[in-house]
Amino acid sequence: MMKKAFTHCNIFTLDEQGTQYENGCIIVNDGTIEYVGEYHDAFVQACDEQIDWTGKWVMPGLVNSHVHIVMNVLRGAAEDLSLHRWLNEKIWPLESKFTDEIAEVSAQAALIEMIKSGTTTFNDMYNPIGLDCTRLYETVKQAGLRGYFSYTLFTPPDGSSEADTLARARDVANYIRRDNSLVSTMIAPHSPYACSTGLLQKSAELAAELGLRLHIHVSETEHEVDLIRSQHGLTPVQYLREIGFFQAPAVFAHGVVLDEQDKEILRETNTTIAHNPVSNLKLGSGIADVAALLEEGIHVGIATDSVASNNNLDMFEELRIAALLQKGTHRNPELIPVDTILRMATHQGAKGLGLAKTGMLKPGFAADFITIHPAGKIHLTPSNHALSHLVYATNGRDVEDNVVNGQFLMKDKQLLTLDEERVSQTLNRLYAEHLQ
Amino acid sequence: MMKKAFTHCNIFTLDEQGTQYENGCIIVNDGTIEYVGEYHDAFVQACDEQIDWTGKWVMPGLVNSHVHIVMNVLRGAAEDLSLHRWLNEKIWPLESKFTDEIAEVSAQAALIEMIKSGTTTFNDMYNPIGLDCTRLYETVKQAGLRGYFSYTLFTPPDGSSEADTLARARDVANYIRRDNSLVSTMIAPHSPYACSTGLLQKSAELAAELGLRLHIHVSETEHEVDLIRSQHGLTPVQYLREIGFFQAPAVFAHGVVLDEQDKEILRETNTTIAHNPVSNLKLGSGIADVAALLEEGIHVGIATDSVASNNNLDMFEELRIAALLQKGTHRNPELIPVDTILRMATHQGAKGLGLAKTGMLKPGFAADFITIHPAGKIHLTPSNHALSHLVYATNGRDVEDNVVNGQFLMKDKQLLTLDEERVSQTLNRLYAEHLQ
Repeated sequence: MMKKAFTHCNIFTLDEQGTQYENGCIIVNDGTIEYVGEYHDAFVQACDEQIDWTGKWVMPGLVNSHVHIVMNVLRGAAEDLSLHRWLNEKIWPLESKFTDEIAEVSAQAALIEMIKSGTTTFNDMYNPIGLDCTRLYETVKQAGLRGYFSYTLFTPPDGSSEADTLARARDVANYIRRDNSLVSTMIAPHSPYACSTGLLQKSAELAAELGLRLHIHVSETEHEVDLIRSQHGLTPVQYLREIGFFQAPAVFAHGVVLDEQDKEILRETNTTIAHNPVSNLKLGSGIADVAALLEEGIHVGIATDSVASNNNLDMFEELRIAALLQKGTHRNPELIPVDTILRMATHQGAKGLGLAKTGMLKPGFAADFITIHPAGKIHLTPSNHALSHLVYATNGRDVEDNVVNGQFLMKDKQLLTLDEERVSQTLNRLYAEHLQ
Repeated sequence: MMKKAFTHCNIFTLDEQGTQYENGCIIVNDGTIEYVGEYHDAFVQACDEQIDWTGKWVMPGLVNSHVHIVMNVLRGAAEDLSLHRWLNEKIWPLESKFTDEIAEVSAQAALIEMIKSGTTTFNDMYNPIGLDCTRLYETVKQAGLRGYFSYTLFTPPDGSSEADTLARARDVANYIRRDNSLVSTMIAPHSPYACSTGLLQKSAELAAELGLRLHIHVSETEHEVDLIRSQHGLTPVQYLREIGFFQAPAVFAHGVVLDEQDKEILRETNTTIAHNPVSNLKLGSGIADVAALLEEGIHVGIATDSVASNNNLDMFEELRIAALLQKGTHRNPELIPVDTILRMATHQGAKGLGLAKTGMLKPGFAADFITIHPAGKIHLTPSNHALSHLVYATNGRDVEDNVVNGQFLMKDKQLLTLDEERVSQTLNRLYAEHLQ
């Protein structure tokens, strides 16, 4: 057992009471927080290592509830298009050219971007057609982040067997969950429009059988809702209930277009909405009514989606825009105050992914946290009102340290698990060779 | 005469044709661009100085069409309140405690933040009650940015004389315009609700007499429109026309709540809307329909407003959110493509302030430009699609160089006209001493 003390820092625990400590200390025992509170010499002397964080702000790491890390090579590749044209004319044709190397380096690029900008937990789903999933999983694990890496199921457009897809999903899920690392998996059918009824049902059964969660795109656009309604006479959420999809806890990415009955179902089934405000704006999908979802007791996390529709993985920017949009669209500046949005992007997000002991700084919780050093930074001056600055003035570029499970992934802005320069150069080369 | 060549860079001119040069060169003669195009040895050898910008992206500097630099000390001081409560309960009481030193250091903080994040031109209006305006102006000038620094006129709430306010506005305007520096001035009555009809009329007459533009907050909230309608039976824009306000070209900050007749008046009078998307969202004012304004031929610039309602001066973030909001609210991802929003934040903005030869990189234009160095930066990888990255993946923290009128204000991230560390420390001390 290895005990570390992170000392003399300004701690924002984001716990239920919003506890803060000015001259604080976090003691970590292996990957778990053992103590958070005021600094005491005696506590720190019992540790194997002391890290002096004088002057730094410390908060729980950010939780990105929906992302596609393998798509990082497609940043900026398709602009100013609607979701359906964007997918069919640009993204899917480009993805069909991916090699194992592109997928691997692209994932590394996303992992670097997340570590640098303060994310400590991610929830990925990816399009693995023709790629080596276990190799990819091993690459992802090496970054050191906590999260979920999930094989996306589609009904094959060429008429080939859904049974093969399901068998592959089962193999990948078994490989990952037996590994018992920080990166687990979910069962991830793409969406009600890209999966047959049978595939959706069998995906749900597989999740229930393996004790995993479900991750799926639902009710992202009016176009989707109209389509499912024309095919099944129901909204996507009602259709999923009708076919018995809710056999395991689920993360629904988007939830932009929801009616009252949909919301009632989401509440009853304790489904989590992964809210992707930038992607939804950029693809013209609209603005999810997060204030109404919260009002009705529905669980909401914050997410970036991929860089192909964002075009970055900076969760500070994402949470800021999420709060701003609700204030603006409801013409009510009191909605989603700073502590609410910070909790949505940390513990609320983590809980929605099944990580009940992640996202707050308190004993027994995962030792996942990040720092920002405000001294001398004009955009964080005056340095009072730190919580407000964390929402409205900070961005991912301010993050100095990223600690996951008690281990540094970035220390004083130096990445420790991945090489930014090498990954950036390689990805540029691969893009030029295969996708241009 | 001093000729400088900025060479070997990737130039985005943002001119009417969207011309780009891969191995480009800009030659500056004093403060004006003499040549922009492919690199030629002979051209460069005729220069007094060559600055090698290999690998850098160069674009025109950003134009912030509406800001209050003296308010930088109030960053984060008032959260989650509507405009009218925010002004009356928080901002105005805090501003009444300002000293000359607070105003001066606060302005310096804003100027540093703008230089660092790539703004080269700003349009300020400030609340000068009891402060030494000419001292402030001298401070502002030293930063080296181009812009407008304008004395804000209010009808005195204590019943004291409007004539005194007008006389002071005239004195300040004359002081600034005779100085003939990069920082000019406008006549800036606060708003239709904080100025009497007489003061609005006399402000407009003063602008016409001195050959200056008008800068005013108009139609920011439904509350304002209802108030003016109840007092005058007209919308704010129609009321301003009725009383003869349009005697000089005007910049209207906000324009969130406009009817068809308002838009017709704005078009006919060639009035510029300074669009402040973040501030309008944050204060719950709403979302200006910029797509409709552009469709009707109304001139629109992009602006941050002050850090008290934003809470930062990063124009890259502002222009990104401006584009995203129109796509999302109209459910049309084709609206406001990347070149359109970049032009709004550069030449369109400058033109609206009366700077017809600013904001594009072409001969005869002001030598105001900024650089970004994408190599090795994971959030700008792959480095193709640069225009898209400038809108959706860049933020102010990426800016490396800021050149105004041919002079470096920041070179390779080193500020040359102001001291960030000192200003930040002093502002923290002043906040603690006077405003806490």
